[in-house]
Amino acid sequence: MGIRVAVAGASGYAGGELLRLIAGHPEFDLVAATAHAQAGQPVAAVHPQLTGLDLVLDATEPATLADADLVFLALPHGASATLAAALPETVKVVDLGADHRLRDPDAWARYYGGAHAGTWTYGLPELPGQRAAIATANRVANTGCYAVATTLALAPLIAAGAVFPADLVVVAASGTSGAGRAAKPHLLGSEVMGDLSPYKVGAHQHVPEIKQATGATSLSLTPVLAPMPRGILATVTAVPTGDTDPREVLAEAYADAPFVHVLPEGTWPHTAATAGSNTCHLQATVDADSGRVIAVSAIDNLGKGAAGQAVQNANLMLGLPETTGLSAFGVAP
Amino acid sequence: MGIRVAVAGASGYAGGELLRLIAGHPEFDLVAATAHAQAGQPVAAVHPQLTGLDLVLDATEPATLADADLVFLALPHGASATLAAALPETVKVVDLGADHRLRDPDAWARYYGGAHAGTWTYGLPELPGQRAAIATANRVANTGCYAVATTLALAPLIAAGAVFPADLVVVAASGTSGAGRAAKPHLLGSEVMGDLSPYKVGAHQHVPEIKQATGATSLSLTPVLAPMPRGILATVTAVPTGDTDPREVLAEAYADAPFVHVLPEGTWPHTAATAGSNTCHLQATVDADSGRVIAVSAIDNLGKGAAGQAVQNANLMLGLPETTGLSAFGVAP
Amino acid sequence: MGIRVAVAGASGYAGGELLRLIAGHPEFDLVAATAHAQAGQPVAAVHPQLTGLDLVLDATEPATLADADLVFLALPHGASATLAAALPETVKVVDLGADHRLRDPDAWARYYGGAHAGTWTYGLPELPGQRAAIATANRVANTGCYAVATTLALAPLIAAGAVFPADLVVVAASGTSGAGRAAKPHLLGSEVMGDLSPYKVGAHQHVPEIKQATGATSLSLTPVLAPMPRGILATVTAVPTGDTDPREVLAEAYADAPFVHVLPEGTWPHTAATAGSNTCHLQATVDADSGRVIAVSAIDNLGKGAAGQAVQNANLMLGLPETTGLSAFGVAP
Amino acid sequence: MGIRVAVAGASGYAGGELLRLIAGHPEFDLVAATAHAQAGQPVAAVHPQLTGLDLVLDATEPATLADADLVFLALPHGASATLAAALPETVKVVDLGADHRLRDPDAWARYYGGAHAGTWTYGLPELPGQRAAIATANRVANTGCYAVATTLALAPLIAAGAVFPADLVVVAASGTSGAGRAAKPHLLGSEVMGDLSPYKVGAHQHVPEIKQATGATSLSLTPVLAPMPRGILATVTAVPTGDTDPREVLAEAYADAPFVHVLPEGTWPHTAATAGSNTCHLQATVDADSGRVIAVSAIDNLGKGAAGQAVQNANLMLGLPETTGLSAFGVAP
Repeated sequence: MGIRVAVAGASGYAGGELLRLIAGHPEFDLVAATAHAQAGQPVAAVHPQLTGLDLVLDATEPATLADADLVFLALPHGASATLAAALPETVKVVDLGADHRLRDPDAWARYYGGAHAGTWTYGLPELPGQRAAIATANRVANTGCYAVATTLALAPLIAAGAVFPADLVVVAASGTSGAGRAAKPHLLGSEVMGDLSPYKVGAHQHVPEIKQATGATSLSLTPVLAPMPRGILATVTAVPTGDTDPREVLAEAYADAPFVHVLPEGTWPHTAATAGSNTCHLQATVDADSGRVIAVSAIDNLGKGAAGQAVQNANLMLGLPETTGLSAFGVAP
Repeated sequence: MGIRVAVAGASGYAGGELLRLIAGHPEFDLVAATAHAQAGQPVAAVHPQLTGLDLVLDATEPATLADADLVFLALPHGASATLAAALPETVKVVDLGADHRLRDPDAWARYYGGAHAGTWTYGLPELPGQRAAIATANRVANTGCYAVATTLALAPLIAAGAVFPADLVVVAASGTSGAGRAAKPHLLGSEVMGDLSPYKVGAHQHVPEIKQATGATSLSLTPVLAPMPRGILATVTAVPTGDTDPREVLAEAYADAPFVHVLPEGTWPHTAATAGSNTCHLQATVDADSGRVIAVSAIDNLGKGAAGQAVQNANLMLGLPETTGLSAFGVAP
Repeated sequence: MGIRVAVAGASGYAGGELLRLIAGHPEFDLVAATAHAQAGQPVAAVHPQLTGLDLVLDATEPATLADADLVFLALPHGASATLAAALPETVKVVDLGADHRLRDPDAWARYYGGAHAGTWTYGLPELPGQRAAIATANRVANTGCYAVATTLALAPLIAAGAVFPADLVVVAASGTSGAGRAAKPHLLGSEVMGDLSPYKVGAHQHVPEIKQATGATSLSLTPVLAPMPRGILATVTAVPTGDTDPREVLAEAYADAPFVHVLPEGTWPHTAATAGSNTCHLQATVDADSGRVIAVSAIDNLGKGAAGQAVQNANLMLGLPETTGLSAFGVAP
Repeated sequence: MGIRVAVAGASGYAGGELLRLIAGHPEFDLVAATAHAQAGQPVAAVHPQLTGLDLVLDATEPATLADADLVFLALPHGASATLAAALPETVKVVDLGADHRLRDPDAWARYYGGAHAGTWTYGLPELPGQRAAIATANRVANTGCYAVATTLALAPLIAAGAVFPADLVVVAASGTSGAGRAAKPHLLGSEVMGDLSPYKVGAHQHVPEIKQATGATSLSLTPVLAPMPRGILATVTAVPTGDTDPREVLAEAYADAPFVHVLPEGTWPHTAATAGSNTCHLQATVDADSGRVIAVSAIDNLGKGAAGQAVQNANLMLGLPETTGLSAFGVAP
């Protein structure tokens, strides 16, 4: 008899990836998967890649989920708080949405709008002390996808004093699944193939989250939609404080992290190598002309950026080995 | 202590996928991976998606492989025979190449050229009687990728007498990994993105293999290169002998096959739903205008079309459950 | 002072391509472009690739269009008839929709539904006698995209008696722009990239049109959505009547056609080579195993399959050289 | 009788695009196209998109080219100088390679290696005074593709004193045609599709060119290979000197430039809108968190980044209107 898990918001892309990971997890039993408009449909009608998974989507009601040991919430931003509040305290919850990430209610109001739902344990195990915090929490807020990619590259550099926490510049490109599954004209295949398209320039909602997670004091993030289904490549540049080798700093910080790999010198991360996995690849150097530190990270936005990370957090919360049911190896080409 | 397996030809795309599957297989220990030009390189330098797999590629020598319980050969067509002959009889072998598939030496000479190496047990477990044959074989010839997609859609229809074995028309499109990893100008990303490109029209080497596996007496196969890394979609049309529902025939044939799914009526297979998995999706109908049977199948050419199928065969040969270490669920989107 | 042209339905993909071609046409003055939901928007807000074209979309009203010498209708199927009937007889019209293509009202009812609007001159200049017919018509029905690709490959073979008009099998794959610009979930970039997906299998509405245009008596057409924005590759197979070389038949039929090129022997059409152009590339051979004739054609579905063809027809109707303002060269890679 | 032009290096991607533009140019007659390994082949065998252009590639010899009024050199970096020196002074030359761009021989030696060939008039007409300089030059060095995208966004901001010339950060992603047509494993379609891959991080050869063209004193450029055939998206960030609106600066600078469009406020450039054209789209804003200026530009790397720009320069050198034979409108979707 395994651990009983449920997924709310199972019809979206992160939800589908959660179902796939849960189906392959040796300790999890999926007891419910819920959706809104698609409730009543077989999972395979909504996620054809899960053909053979015999389950019908339920409506998203607390009663349907309350019976689980752990619930994953993969709901639109702003929708998690109410549902989470209606679940018994004894049910562990991993929220893939943004509702419980920020500590600063003003930042929430400014970037998301509405009332702030409160702050949960931040779900990035690779941050110092966070693995232990997650292990004892019963409510964990998953890190946002751009925030994972940026924070893993940046946090150790700031923490080590190797770069200044101000004047940080991040340009990060994401595959289209990061934009969700709602049918919007600018996300049509005809529009996105062959196209690189920046959006929310100068005001992305992951900025306050990244600052909170890394200690950055000023940071510009330019997100770009890229013509691929999955993957985030984040290019992070910072002004160095001295001569510290940034690659060394990263290598040391993640020496024991099973899902973060600092690549051999001269080898740069690229997204395809992380597709379908819970891995983050990292590299850093010092720019010849400007002297800036350039750190690059690659993740699968649905893996380490969402569903994989959520399962990693769940493993920790449930006392399982962190890597259970997760792969560090990408599906490529 | 697990079962000792080795991969010859580990630097190509099928080889890389084999390494990924072996790394996730609960019973396999990878004892050697060999290559030609890339011998001496760490696996992760050749397959960045396998970063974290600490192994160096060896040269492809019988001695390096002879120590394994089972060897996968993922070599260019024509290169398997000599190596296989140099391995001890006690070593089980799955050959992903074409060398040992055909029973007819003339067909080999006509489509591949050179001397025919002989015929091994044909590695498509879903064919009648083949699961048992594979389980007792110690040398198995993996089915070719187009042949898998076509045969799974066609063989039961011919066997049931539902369609005539002549006048068969197949058009099958494949992702670019099916064309291999050798750097050829027409396979450059700039050339293949945005492009559908037929090749070997009127004379593809999988035709005799499909005829042998299905009982077809005449068949035209038009292969098309499609702008995606993985996946084969085969459209098979045939003249019906009567009123038999072709979907029913397929559903019955694969009722117990864990990796072949006949989709619900009205739902058609598409390749993305099978990516990264060992699954085949099938559907069939009767064309309103011509009365022809149209059957469509989708697979991942590196999964059920190559490495996944090879592991499935290895499982059977080793007395393991057929599904060990394999997923029926695709990585999508 | 040029020829005054207008476009109704200018917000879709075919409409956008029409605007681009008209802007580059040396004899056309664009006097109006109309849309439905997007009326009132600048063209560049709807088609960013036309930034610099200073024009606001009007509502689609007969009065707005009646002033033009020639009107292009790029409306959804079923919407052209009413608007066309409201335009003065003196205004020439090219209808890119299906409303006026079919001669058989029953075929219309069966494949499209509703009342049949009547039959206009069929707009495929490369069919025997059709160039002259178009030149004297003032209402022309543009050929459907799959019908262009299939008919150009098939019609001469049937006309020459080289193949039987029955037992024809066509598999044709199209880029996503052929599915239009309406935001539907299955057309999202995340869904279509990496995917080949058949649709309307066994019952596509272009079948009666192809039969009418080619003289085919029975034909199966399997359409497939391919992961690219533009292009159609049609594979047409037929049973030969004798030994006639199918390539010769095609080469002879199109010796004087400026936009149809039969490629050198052994060279096969591929879609990328036709992107952005009004060209059709053709090749044919006899299959080694089955003896079937295999003819392959490639077009840009928005070019020769829609807007390019429409301009070609308009040129003929207006007494201009057929090639005015059109390119036979693709934009590649 | 038109102006006689020739292309050396016609077998590559920039060469092919030049041939396409020349074929559609109302004043140019193509008198020779030369290549190295592909000499002797028909153009259409090397560039199938130019089927119908009846021309055979010559060997690249001065004598073959000397007869033209203007020669385009689309050769590998380092190969232009010798050939250019062998052409009569009376023959005008546009060099698409890097050989004659830099004024500083040390920068050449550091980033390209070998002896510096000298400095020609810099071929970016949109820089202040440059249009006139090009018009009187008979040797012009085309701007590099990343340099075009970056310089058009950055030069006016520095010139206006709106941003500091130091601490500039550029991240620019390019389609794969920018990497050329040589068959290299990492450029295979299987590798690039679904992948974002940074390269030459910290040391790209366009840095000294951008500094020379913009007046920047320190600049980091991170180039990324993106999964699309064409297009460059450059994100340029800079520290503002005061409150100047960066969008206003750009709008003023390019008020009269036919090929550079500053988009309406809130609308961001994306590459697909520029494909196949000679256009550059621009936008700029001030980042809410960091206060940095973020300017974004999009071009087609083969258009305004190479062949289109070259034709624009040739037009100016020959006294033709700058826009002759060039389109400001992209081919989309």
